[in-house]
Amino acid sequence: MIKTDILIIGAGPTGLFTVFEAGLLKLKCHIIDALAQPGGQLAEIYPKKPIYDIPGFPEVMAGELVDNLLEQGKQFQPGFTLGERAETIEKQEDGSFIVTTNKGTQHHAPVVAIAGGLGSFEPRKPLIPNIHQFEDKGVAYMIKDPEVYRGKKVVIAGGGDSALDWSIFLADVADEVTLIHRRNEFRGALDSVEKVRELKMLGKINLVTPAEVVGLAGNDELEQVVVEHADKSQSTLEADAFIPLFGLSPKLGPIADWGLEIEKNAIKVDNSLDYQTNIPGVFAIGDVNTYPGKLKLILCGFHEATMMCQSAYQIINPGKRYVMKYTTVSGIDGFDGTRKEAEKAVVQAIN
Amino acid sequence: MIKTDILIIGAGPTGLFTVFEAGLLKLKCHIIDALAQPGGQLAEIYPKKPIYDIPGFPEVMAGELVDNLLEQGKQFQPGFTLGERAETIEKQEDGSFIVTTNKGTQHHAPVVAIAGGLGSFEPRKPLIPNIHQFEDKGVAYMIKDPEVYRGKKVVIAGGGDSALDWSIFLADVADEVTLIHRRNEFRGALDSVEKVRELKMLGKINLVTPAEVVGLAGNDELEQVVVEHADKSQSTLEADAFIPLFGLSPKLGPIADWGLEIEKNAIKVDNSLDYQTNIPGVFAIGDVNTYPGKLKLILCGFHEATMMCQSAYQIINPGKRYVMKYTTVSGIDGFDGTRKEAEKAVVQAIN
Repeated sequence: MIKTDILIIGAGPTGLFTVFEAGLLKLKCHIIDALAQPGGQLAEIYPKKPIYDIPGFPEVMAGELVDNLLEQGKQFQPGFTLGERAETIEKQEDGSFIVTTNKGTQHHAPVVAIAGGLGSFEPRKPLIPNIHQFEDKGVAYMIKDPEVYRGKKVVIAGGGDSALDWSIFLADVADEVTLIHRRNEFRGALDSVEKVRELKMLGKINLVTPAEVVGLAGNDELEQVVVEHADKSQSTLEADAFIPLFGLSPKLGPIADWGLEIEKNAIKVDNSLDYQTNIPGVFAIGDVNTYPGKLKLILCGFHEATMMCQSAYQIINPGKRYVMKYTTVSGIDGFDGTRKEAEKAVVQAIN
Repeated sequence: MIKTDILIIGAGPTGLFTVFEAGLLKLKCHIIDALAQPGGQLAEIYPKKPIYDIPGFPEVMAGELVDNLLEQGKQFQPGFTLGERAETIEKQEDGSFIVTTNKGTQHHAPVVAIAGGLGSFEPRKPLIPNIHQFEDKGVAYMIKDPEVYRGKKVVIAGGGDSALDWSIFLADVADEVTLIHRRNEFRGALDSVEKVRELKMLGKINLVTPAEVVGLAGNDELEQVVVEHADKSQSTLEADAFIPLFGLSPKLGPIADWGLEIEKNAIKVDNSLDYQTNIPGVFAIGDVNTYPGKLKLILCGFHEATMMCQSAYQIINPGKRYVMKYTTVSGIDGFDGTRKEAEKAVVQAIN
């Protein structure tokens, strides 16, 4: 059982900044995220895209902002449970919570902060009737370990960067790579598009466009994919693996069943004070919450996280008064023994 | 008469970021500030001090943050009325406002955003009974043009950086510089303290410590200061100028008389929606406002400014619906014709 002060669900920018603000109040944080790395959609979907509306940054790459937030919170030593999805929450008699992930990892905390963004990102699945039957038996929606495809016949579907990049990568690993896309046009980085063109010329990638995979067949494990072409004719390809890379789609997921008041796929909170939900001790901050006038902006999540930490402090230290100190004046003491502080003015006599 | 969409009072970080958020909504801003430069206390009081709690900046110098915010808002071409204090506000029949400064400059806008921080910074004055009588007749609390002291006998009082730095500077300009401080110890940058020591050795600064100026005398213009020493003995110095540099103290100032609901020297606002005050069309954002749970943090001011701009948009464009766009997706069009946007993915056919 992992124990912490504030259990944060979601390692996006709001969740990461919570670590820092909680740390200033001497509260420890642990973060659960379904993705394998921190940063949420900034790291997963658009790490190389510039954001223009983070205060104080005329322009910042999404991935760089994530790195900065990790660096800012580092001295408060957050814990992480990554690649697991928060599945259930149980209120304990003392008012604290146990949150269990889809892999069974248990977390115990007096305060839960849901910073789940638009939800957990789940792969978009093609509408092939029997696709579920072959999941983990040849069909995969994301590539965790490319080595499992060594010597195999792989069919990739999709027209974006993921489909292009994995086709390029697997061309050297798999026995055969077929890339299928419903258009002739691909949308991706220029060098990826050119590299695929080159590998096609060299016969290392088999390109089938415009076309769609419409059927799967096999005896337990996947053996064949059925491809429909523009003229509605069909052909069959031998395949050990079918990997549709159609992007990620956010889903609120199991949190929707936690008994929280939900409105328009977001969690209702008390924005007049501390962004607490209808369950005392459970807060929702950042894009996952809603209230009158709500703006789904990262900078609003930062404010919400900061306000929430004040109430968390009261829950965890009942009756204790916290006097806010300015970091410029008082510096910051990390849980790792580090200290950051402004250089003090010299006090010296002149005789 | 200066006309704008949002008239911002206060050029601190919250006021500066308002320019950017308003710009995204195609609203123009004009800023009034009593200080001669933008940045509020970050620029005036602690430009060289690090701040640790701006989200995404593990550490940033206050002056650098101001520069970044100016850069971020630049393409929305804000107007500035600097070195003037907002003095009066008059509501017009159409619901708009005219704000007039202490120098008579008039500003007309449908929305007023008070981002006044802790108030306008006013110099701390020593408790010398007749000091008011010599203001602008030898007594000054800040130095605007050091040339007026050329060839004069100047007495400076204070023990911090301002007193040290101006003593050093005026040693080359004035005929005589006397630095008086109630302690032997000075609090300032190491090199300033050492430079004063050196100038004292060279006879270019006359140092009197521990001592205090307790009286002023003169026939209309200042002629003499009376100095009291540690042993309570008094002496008299010839002086054309007396400059006490005891720091700045924030005062809410004339805004306190605008009919706004004031609580604990701050302006009450509706934090459940848009940080509007009891006067419709007048908002208060950043450290100048108060509401349940209020934290006087820069990052909260950023959020408040952003929420406020949405309501300002509705006031200025009644009935028009604004659809929020993400800067990463839609880019930013400056009022100066510039455009910032993320590089688009290439769409290209592979044949």
